[in-house]
Amino acid sequence: MKILFTQENDKSRLLSRRTFMSAAATGTALTALSILPLTGMAETKTSQNNSSADEKKMILGMVVFEGFQLLDTFGPLEMFGALKDKVTIYMIGEKAGNIKSSAGPAVAVDYTFDNAPKLDIVMIPGGMGTRREVNNAPFLASFKSMAEATPHVASICTGSAVLAKTGLIDGLKATTNKRSYKWATSQGEKVKWVAQARWVEDGKYFTSSGISAGTDMALALIDKLFGRETAMKVANGAEYEWNTDPHHDPFAKLNGLVD
Amino acid sequence: MKILFTQENDKSRLLSRRTFMSAAATGTALTALSILPLTGMAETKTSQNNSSADEKKMILGMVVFEGFQLLDTFGPLEMFGALKDKVTIYMIGEKAGNIKSSAGPAVAVDYTFDNAPKLDIVMIPGGMGTRREVNNAPFLASFKSMAEATPHVASICTGSAVLAKTGLIDGLKATTNKRSYKWATSQGEKVKWVAQARWVEDGKYFTSSGISAGTDMALALIDKLFGRETAMKVANGAEYEWNTDPHHDPFAKLNGLVD
Repeated sequence: MKILFTQENDKSRLLSRRTFMSAAATGTALTALSILPLTGMAETKTSQNNSSADEKKMILGMVVFEGFQLLDTFGPLEMFGALKDKVTIYMIGEKAGNIKSSAGPAVAVDYTFDNAPKLDIVMIPGGMGTRREVNNAPFLASFKSMAEATPHVASICTGSAVLAKTGLIDGLKATTNKRSYKWATSQGEKVKWVAQARWVEDGKYFTSSGISAGTDMALALIDKLFGRETAMKVANGAEYEWNTDPHHDPFAKLNGLVD
Repeated sequence: MKILFTQENDKSRLLSRRTFMSAAATGTALTALSILPLTGMAETKTSQNNSSADEKKMILGMVVFEGFQLLDTFGPLEMFGALKDKVTIYMIGEKAGNIKSSAGPAVAVDYTFDNAPKLDIVMIPGGMGTRREVNNAPFLASFKSMAEATPHVASICTGSAVLAKTGLIDGLKATTNKRSYKWATSQGEKVKWVAQARWVEDGKYFTSSGISAGTDMALALIDKLFGRETAMKVANGAEYEWNTDPHHDPFAKLNGLVD
């Protein structure tokens, strides 16, 4: 089974036509860099982060709640799921059982807040359920404790509203869904919200724009943890044209947030 | 709750910077068209397909099996999930209970092959589990019957291998994952496999390339069923830069399938 998995997810080369086109159009060296083989970088980062295959695997917990958004959740988990030798994924809920997404399909909770193992990465998606969870004090308290104890914290879409409501990103830069921007940003008035960003990194916190943006952010976190070469391999393995530029966000303008 | 959902998924405008850049770079009128408001088109298509909000909703069944690929499954379901007034989504399995993805997270089966309602759309994802299912005769027979009885059939990634193994796409054009191309295409030697394609439409069958390609294909199916304007709204609502060109496939070359 491992060999079969590898065929789909692990033997990629380094190229992204979208990245290339974007770089060609904008002339930015930063973006253009992403199509080059960055030999050595991955190895260095890997050893710094204790994440080689011979060491303990990282544990990623994805927090879910009734009405979570599917792609917010499974875009990032597809990318981290390609690193089976480096990362183990668990779904975490307030209660045990199955939890329904906003679109209908339900996922199984592996651990509750109370019995979850110590995490290396915690993520929280958006979805209409966030409007309930920002007013759910026990959920907020549990999520806050978990995020405080976890070295890498990421929110996708309106998951940023829940994260903001904990107070943990007060004074930090963050972004969120661009259509629900007014509501989401109102949940954290001390956060330095960035209107135009695909994702924002500030300290241990990564926050992404709406729904599909979480996938690009997840690859940026993989880049941080395991190096650019690994991130490009994962993207190419998923036949995914990674938007490597955190500033590329046409949806801020589309939603009237910038001129 | 409906209003909140609408905020994230239903009030979009028509623009995709990626589409625009792609059109600008290639100069293709076809691609450029996708950024224009195509007024009237959606309404016409909608009435032709009996899919207005006042009529019966379509039922989309996503077939899952142990070792299914997350993004194959939930990329398309994110897009169709934004059309809650038009489409109901069910997860379908060989047996009841929860089914584990290749990455770990498990989803709940809503119906088995035996008790599923009549579908309007059936989809099958890829993932390492396809290597087992192509040799699972009862699964193949059930999936074949379901696909024969369903007006719209789509496979993602190596889901095409399972679809091909049923014989239903013999003589038709199709594509599949580009890294697992040799194995997947060997499951249907009478299929007219297309090496370079993001997705292929032939009659009632849509087949996509690997993993993330399913999302682009799903939007093409939404375009077919409900019109381009609806598809662009869904993409923009998900802050997703839809690759509207089925021929745009850099991963065929990356995997050595074309020069």
